[in-house]
Amino acid sequence: MAACIFCKIIRGEIPALKIFESEKTLAFLDIGPLSKGHSLIIPKYHGAKLHDIPDDQLSEVLSVAKKIALAQNLENYNLLQNNGRIAHQVVDHVHFHVIPKPNETEGLGISWPTKPADKGELQKLLEEMRSKM
Amino acid sequence: MAACIFCKIIRGEIPALKIFESEKTLAFLDIGPLSKGHSLIIPKYHGAKLHDIPDDQLSEVLSVAKKIALAQNLENYNLLQNNGRIAHQVVDHVHFHVIPKPNETEGLGISWPTKPADKGELQKLLEEMRSKM
Repeated sequence: MAACIFCKIIRGEIPALKIFESEKTLAFLDIGPLSKGHSLIIPKYHGAKLHDIPDDQLSEVLSVAKKIALAQNLENYNLLQNNGRIAHQVVDHVHFHVIPKPNETEGLGISWPTKPADKGELQKLLEEMRSKM
Repeated sequence: MAACIFCKIIRGEIPALKIFESEKTLAFLDIGPLSKGHSLIIPKYHGAKLHDIPDDQLSEVLSVAKKIALAQNLENYNLLQNNGRIAHQVVDHVHFHVIPKPNETEGLGISWPTKPADKGELQKLLEEMRSKM
């Protein structure tokens, strides 16, 4: 946590372009944006991955994402939260991207390589998951 | 809402592989998955885009996303919520994807075409946004 760049921003040791701040949530502009208005929302609670953060520390995140979208009159945008290097996470402090999608070339690029799912395997997976929820 | 496929699932008119259900939230397996365990979380409240949904109708979403990740012992995954066709939204009822990322080829494909941001423009944008938050 001492070395975490987002914790340093929270503590005011590194400047940030702060959009919103409350006791448990901070939002600021991404300085390497995918599009104009690309913003980050973080819980102040330090944790690397979504499942590391207590529910109550996440309670304002979606409300702040809505505020960011409304403040820019966004019609097209992506909300994205990445967990793990292979899933494109770079900073190990949970962060939610609000990424405006003004046109085909700017904003988040997505590829969607679906594969047909076996109904029997889906049913088996469902039962496994339900038993652990 | 009568024709919305997710509202039909909520009303039980179309079957779904339901993982979690409460008064205001439903989660089910995506039948066209990007990877094994690809799940969708929806508010039962009908609205096309994130900013259309009242905060209180979104209050369980991130908690359920965590449950889905934990039920599968996921280490690498993306949480994604798309708004607008150009941003890859296909069904006009807000939905959050939890997409396991088991390896480079399966799961969500992301491209990240950042451009250098002008500090002055960022500062101007920040002031505009703050005035509307």
